[in-house]
Amino acid sequence: MDVSKEDELCLISILEALEVVRGKWSILVLTLLSLGPQRFNQMRRQLPNISIKSLTDVLRHLEQHEVINRQVFPTGPVTVEYSLTEKGKAYIPVLREMRIWGDNWVGKSEAH
Amino acid sequence: MDVSKEDELCLISILEALEVVRGKWSILVLTLLSLGPQRFNQMRRQLPNISIKSLTDVLRHLEQHEVINRQVFPTGPVTVEYSLTEKGKAYIPVLREMRIWGDNWVGKSEAH
Repeated sequence: MDVSKEDELCLISILEALEVVRGKWSILVLTLLSLGPQRFNQMRRQLPNISIKSLTDVLRHLEQHEVINRQVFPTGPVTVEYSLTEKGKAYIPVLREMRIWGDNWVGKSEAH
Repeated sequence: MDVSKEDELCLISILEALEVVRGKWSILVLTLLSLGPQRFNQMRRQLPNISIKSLTDVLRHLEQHEVINRQVFPTGPVTVEYSLTEKGKAYIPVLREMRIWGDNWVGKSEAH
């Protein structure tokens, strides 16, 4: 079965979504920020094995695509806090379904 | 704000889900198969720029994790068809939310 025009649009929407939120780190950063605003080092502590470069790149990419906000507070030294934009908050249903799937199908069926 | 025990479980579930369905190709393969069973070459035609090796690796990974079925029909030459398992079908809500997000936030706001 080849896909129809309608199904092709579905593929395109998902492909577009994947160009913005791509890869494991993007999704984990959004998961953390869905719990509330976070500073760089807070996120780094909570993401297993992420390098400073990877986290910097992911945050910059998500900020450029207007999924997250980067806010600088004039403390000394300055505090930089990241949070979800409206576009980022709209991604939460994806994370919720992913969590449900992980809970129901991976933890159990693949536990060793 | 550091994450609580409950939030940590959320991160773990999502991390587990991402170990099974990881990367752009996995998600696009599941999207195609959510539309119906497909043969290798059908999928290859519909996935932009995927190499034979990448598609083979993704299919093997998803099959090992029991997300997709690989069925061989004794035609001459043999036909190999891929389809979603129950675990794979349970992933469809993630794809659906991703599509909605792509439709609402990427196609429009990032159109150039």
